[in-house]
Amino acid sequence: MSVYKRLEALKISLPEVEPPAAAFVPVVRTGNLLFVSGHIARKDGKPWTGKLGENLFTPQGKEAARGIAIELLATLHAALGDLNKITRIVKLLVLVNSSPTFTEQHLVGNGASDLFIEVLGEKGAHARSAFGVAQLPLGACVEIELVAEVQ
Amino acid sequence: MSVYKRLEALKISLPEVEPPAAAFVPVVRTGNLLFVSGHIARKDGKPWTGKLGENLFTPQGKEAARGIAIELLATLHAALGDLNKITRIVKLLVLVNSSPTFTEQHLVGNGASDLFIEVLGEKGAHARSAFGVAQLPLGACVEIELVAEVQ
Amino acid sequence: MSVYKRLEALKISLPEVEPPAAAFVPVVRTGNLLFVSGHIARKDGKPWTGKLGENLFTPQGKEAARGIAIELLATLHAALGDLNKITRIVKLLVLVNSSPTFTEQHLVGNGASDLFIEVLGEKGAHARSAFGVAQLPLGACVEIELVAEVQ
Repeated sequence: MSVYKRLEALKISLPEVEPPAAAFVPVVRTGNLLFVSGHIARKDGKPWTGKLGENLFTPQGKEAARGIAIELLATLHAALGDLNKITRIVKLLVLVNSSPTFTEQHLVGNGASDLFIEVLGEKGAHARSAFGVAQLPLGACVEIELVAEVQ
Repeated sequence: MSVYKRLEALKISLPEVEPPAAAFVPVVRTGNLLFVSGHIARKDGKPWTGKLGENLFTPQGKEAARGIAIELLATLHAALGDLNKITRIVKLLVLVNSSPTFTEQHLVGNGASDLFIEVLGEKGAHARSAFGVAQLPLGACVEIELVAEVQ
Repeated sequence: MSVYKRLEALKISLPEVEPPAAAFVPVVRTGNLLFVSGHIARKDGKPWTGKLGENLFTPQGKEAARGIAIELLATLHAALGDLNKITRIVKLLVLVNSSPTFTEQHLVGNGASDLFIEVLGEKGAHARSAFGVAQLPLGACVEIELVAEVQ
């Protein structure tokens, strides 16, 4: 099944791609690899701010990570023209804005990981690191960067 | 000398590979590169918890990093069947669970870096970044991700 | 225009390359990619220490990031012999030593991003992630790692 049919079946519509908040580009291709810039969590079109373990908890973090995964797909769609060209999600780096005692970054990251597998099937299964950061740009609660392989 | 003979000479036995604690895979291959998921420190089969500069210090952090390097080799062995296929350890990302004042992340990282050079010789010499994170999944004291090049 | 003429026009002279502070190498090449180790900020030849949002603020962080970008170019020059061999700066990872409330890591990162674009033009436009870390080796205020593509 095409990636777009799966997105439709999951009732996911890709958002407009936001330009980066700073002096860099959203995606660089080198050979068959796409390096995608860190995307921060957004809610109602604005940065979704907060710190996990302080004023946000695992379920919200997971939802934020899922939302970022959808934004990453929108960026990949804009860069490639066709998400079916993706042969593999290679790696995610999941940065969770964390209090010094919050230890569920891996569960937060699952919000994104599960979405990629739902949408892309086996091609969506990726390597990953997740960890707690001291803060993120604009106070966002989660940021995720991605490496993908294309045809 | 084969990698396995060096491991034997160093009296290092590779542990059983633990499945990831979340929805991702341990290794993704793209072209000649293997992207290996972040591995957290373990002690006696459980996450080795703690924060450097607070309740753990550089020697323990270094030992934890060395242990992770051995677990990364075990994961590479499971993925490749033969560690002699590794042509280069390309890069490590060393995440150290740090108090706001602990500044020896590079010395902690050496626990892993030294091990790769002991076991793989010149092929083990890698690029690296090490830094202090606010927290890690399951409260682990160190997490390391790796990129390797294979034949 | 050659990269060296642009550096001259910008009155930038490349510093001597410092050996890594620990057991790793500055650059590893695999295929057409160069993975460059994290470089920490330096001032007057010593680590530029401090924490953004605590005792340093965005303008200094940006200046520190710009200085690191110049040191990264010096490392690439030492590795390649000729910076004109660079076909693309692929990705930066910008680690900002941050208080728990500092949220301008993206503006700090611009100090490096702008420099690469000034010196390398379109080839300097890269993907990027920037985030706040709990601490950095030797207490440095900023650390940046880089992936570049070469001929």
